[in-house]
Amino acid sequence: MDYHGRIQRLCALFDSHAIDGFLISRLVHVRYFTGFSGSNGAAAIFDSSATLATDSRYDLQARTESPHCDIRIERAVVAEMMTALLERGARRIGIEADFVSHVQYLALQAQAAEVGAVVVLISGAIESLRIIKEPEEVDCIARACEITSLAWWNVVSRGVVGKTELALAADVEAEFRYLGAEDRAFESIVAAGPHSAIPHHQPTSRVVQRGDLLKMDIGARVAGYHADMTRTVAVGESADWQRELYAAVFAAQTAAFAIAREGTDSQDLAAVIRRQHEVDGFSHLIQHQPGHGVGLEIHEKPFLGRGDGILRSRMPITVEPGLYVPDRGGVRIEDTIEILSDGYRCLTTANRDFITV
Amino acid sequence: MDYHGRIQRLCALFDSHAIDGFLISRLVHVRYFTGFSGSNGAAAIFDSSATLATDSRYDLQARTESPHCDIRIERAVVAEMMTALLERGARRIGIEADFVSHVQYLALQAQAAEVGAVVVLISGAIESLRIIKEPEEVDCIARACEITSLAWWNVVSRGVVGKTELALAADVEAEFRYLGAEDRAFESIVAAGPHSAIPHHQPTSRVVQRGDLLKMDIGARVAGYHADMTRTVAVGESADWQRELYAAVFAAQTAAFAIAREGTDSQDLAAVIRRQHEVDGFSHLIQHQPGHGVGLEIHEKPFLGRGDGILRSRMPITVEPGLYVPDRGGVRIEDTIEILSDGYRCLTTANRDFITV
Repeated sequence: MDYHGRIQRLCALFDSHAIDGFLISRLVHVRYFTGFSGSNGAAAIFDSSATLATDSRYDLQARTESPHCDIRIERAVVAEMMTALLERGARRIGIEADFVSHVQYLALQAQAAEVGAVVVLISGAIESLRIIKEPEEVDCIARACEITSLAWWNVVSRGVVGKTELALAADVEAEFRYLGAEDRAFESIVAAGPHSAIPHHQPTSRVVQRGDLLKMDIGARVAGYHADMTRTVAVGESADWQRELYAAVFAAQTAAFAIAREGTDSQDLAAVIRRQHEVDGFSHLIQHQPGHGVGLEIHEKPFLGRGDGILRSRMPITVEPGLYVPDRGGVRIEDTIEILSDGYRCLTTANRDFITV
Repeated sequence: MDYHGRIQRLCALFDSHAIDGFLISRLVHVRYFTGFSGSNGAAAIFDSSATLATDSRYDLQARTESPHCDIRIERAVVAEMMTALLERGARRIGIEADFVSHVQYLALQAQAAEVGAVVVLISGAIESLRIIKEPEEVDCIARACEITSLAWWNVVSRGVVGKTELALAADVEAEFRYLGAEDRAFESIVAAGPHSAIPHHQPTSRVVQRGDLLKMDIGARVAGYHADMTRTVAVGESADWQRELYAAVFAAQTAAFAIAREGTDSQDLAAVIRRQHEVDGFSHLIQHQPGHGVGLEIHEKPFLGRGDGILRSRMPITVEPGLYVPDRGGVRIEDTIEILSDGYRCLTTANRDFITV
């Protein structure tokens, strides 16, 4: 990963924010600049270099993952990074406005004031850097998507009738690792029958039965990068209402794919999906926005339908229309795609047809 | 779960904090008072009742999980709960000081000021309520610990040589669900050979070999409640240094168990472990504190060795001494125990001896 490039790109923003250092405490951002993946850490960016603080549990790991960083072992990682910045002469220190707690803000302000320095609230700057991925980042997401697609088919093709939602979740998450993923990207959603009408259903001991819709929203993680895919299948047989619902969701996703390319407004992707549902008479069954960026987080910018701007090359996003009939069943089809200059590449490769298993 | 009792106990604290309502935005606290387990929600506690806000994805789930709450479907859950509190006449509104971001704090302050209300920063009040568990909470933790113990033995007894750390992590997490857990409690740590010297090692494709120490720090989750257990075994054969290290960790844990009961200072549990390591000449190999509370979070109060006060009945805590020889190997033995008036009950039931598998 291009850690030096990332640090340079952040430092290039310092002047416009009138800061001379950045204290990073959100873990995913610590990882973005340092590579460190432990559960306690903070980073300081100053003069085109990065310092990392973590506690003693992660000493060896930090030295392995973050060889480009100056490393300090200290429990109070945030205060330690403020100390590091002040020692090196920083006097206007950016902090993550949307993440630093109010109590932490007051403590950092007091610590800075002791030497006449100030903290400056910065919102969204790092998120905006992360939105366009480096080629190596896209490779990791693509690999995670490939593993996700294979794992889904391996599990579904072994038969689902008589298995619980929980057992299918267990099987698919084990499969991720047998296929080379480091872990799952998020808690798997496995929803059968009426449960498929709940967009974010948590798997239960309900047994999959003939006639169910079986919706699985799953993803593997590779080197910290996430995949996100949903497939909905019919179990044993399919009914007319299920086929109609599936066809409507499929049509909406296809309409979005048709305009997915560099230069398209992310808002338009959401709009075209809604319009298709309206045309088909299904818009009353919408329950969520139809997509988001993926990367070091499972949900990150751009969020489709929230005014997050124009799509650019090397933005990986999900396209995930869904329609839900309460107490009966729902369909979601979700793929992770990479935006290209002249279109898109579908990174999740599992069959998109309405199949019966 | 005794949601009404929890709400009452929180309201009983209002006078001492000079507040008349509480806006809860930390998800684990939202769950504690409402039962809601989705990924977006906030709650308002006022006049001995709870209001819950979540977005449309979780509509059905909220109605199922939180029948005792007034439910509002709205994306901006925190602002919505402030609105609800102000509508009902609250004028001094507690918020979670250590969680609410600085930006959110400013927004809430402005929203409250419009009607002459104020926000009051409250630190640690809810955490302190959660520290003593209801019997039903202990039952869930005990069940999670039982599943964890069985899953570990099922996986280890099937043979480990030639399997990767990742495959063993996959197997144990699948086993959790086959045995009835809803999920894992945290990302499993599976560390073989020199990796066992890294306290919080993330599983890799390293293959387990004869002569390795194999450390597995794992836990299942039941109804939101966490288990935490570590076992270290020898693979194929054991060496003198491994047996000595294990005996030292075992002795330290045994010393802590000997004083674990209601009325013991949590600080003393940490002290007795350190003292035992000093006596045995191993204290230079310590890398972390030896325990913490478990409940709706995997790490919660009391933290052993951080001055978190006296142990009480129905506090579930971990006791987890560990010693780590860099580049060679480490041993941790961790059990989740319930504090009783006259001693303790070990909730994790797996064999604590140094076995060779």
